[in-house]
Amino acid sequence: MERKEISKAVLKRLPGYLSYLKTLNVQYISATTLANALGMGEVQVRKDLAAVSDGGRPKIGYERKGLIQDINSFLGYDNATDAILVGAGKLGQALLGYSGFKAYGLNILAAFDAKPAVSQVDGRPVLPMAALEDFCRDNNVLMGIITVPTPAAQQVCDRLIGCGIQAIWNFAPTHLDVPAGILVQNENMATSLAVLSMHLQAKMKDEK
Amino acid sequence: MERKEISKAVLKRLPGYLSYLKTLNVQYISATTLANALGMGEVQVRKDLAAVSDGGRPKIGYERKGLIQDINSFLGYDNATDAILVGAGKLGQALLGYSGFKAYGLNILAAFDAKPAVSQVDGRPVLPMAALEDFCRDNNVLMGIITVPTPAAQQVCDRLIGCGIQAIWNFAPTHLDVPAGILVQNENMATSLAVLSMHLQAKMKDEK
Repeated sequence: MERKEISKAVLKRLPGYLSYLKTLNVQYISATTLANALGMGEVQVRKDLAAVSDGGRPKIGYERKGLIQDINSFLGYDNATDAILVGAGKLGQALLGYSGFKAYGLNILAAFDAKPAVSQVDGRPVLPMAALEDFCRDNNVLMGIITVPTPAAQQVCDRLIGCGIQAIWNFAPTHLDVPAGILVQNENMATSLAVLSMHLQAKMKDEK
Repeated sequence: MERKEISKAVLKRLPGYLSYLKTLNVQYISATTLANALGMGEVQVRKDLAAVSDGGRPKIGYERKGLIQDINSFLGYDNATDAILVGAGKLGQALLGYSGFKAYGLNILAAFDAKPAVSQVDGRPVLPMAALEDFCRDNNVLMGIITVPTPAAQQVCDRLIGCGIQAIWNFAPTHLDVPAGILVQNENMATSLAVLSMHLQAKMKDEK
């Protein structure tokens, strides 16, 4: 179907529908059933699904497999994105070894590190930084994942952009400056932990 | 120092300062130096540091180690939080094996799974769900990490709250309903990947 403009809020809900739909074993499912199962508003679910699929039929609903395909396709999960990862420390290695990303269309080809401590993780090579430029060019890589320590993050980011990277998934807890047209998606686990930890501290203080 | 109210924006910047400060080898550092090094505004850095530490001295700046301690303490990183993880699949195991969390004061005591495929990860036990209630009570656990598939997430969440859990780190790509006073921090990697992937799709369309 024709691609529509879609809000980030809708985008955030789509993986939830997808994940639930995959667990079902029915041929058809209506927006109402889906809304009830996920504890969401029926109108919202109806609108969300209409934005990504035109397979809905009155009184019957959506063919489940077709709907899964439409959401997958909309989110780009069916179109594997090749990526490289820079910073093969503990977090980098954990991400490299996480097979679940394949379901989301992410294919990490290789990792790079200033001082590689291992030569591969789950069959994916860990290469020295000197090999970065050639690898990106040879494999036409457009996505980079940054898992280096904060002080190295901006420099790595600049170098990735020099290699033609267009989208950066940043796990370093710092802001990255990038030119217009390059997208940075920050994944700040340290901040998440701080938010949770502060909540607990406040809780324990209240109880005293 | 007396705990001040602090905005989430400040909270998001603190881990960045901390990470950078740890890499230095100087005794004192000024807000100006820090701002320049991180490419941030001097006024903002000055305000942020003043909010978490009263160690700043005119013309000298902050004693680096003291400042690290103050930020650590403010973020709760020096006060290890015991947590349990539910859902020992690929992502759960990756988190369980990620030693970097210790630096952020997170201590995952054990994992629980409906059908444990392994008995331990890096010395931390993976237990059947039936053991959840007793374990939480015996260890006075207040934080729970959810890495189960979406359809199981709300049920697991309810069960954790029944166990006395006050703060939930949710990696399932779905909204969780919780009573007032319980904090849920969502870590939606699937959404991040969708955002990145859509950016790349739009890029490639533009180039055609």
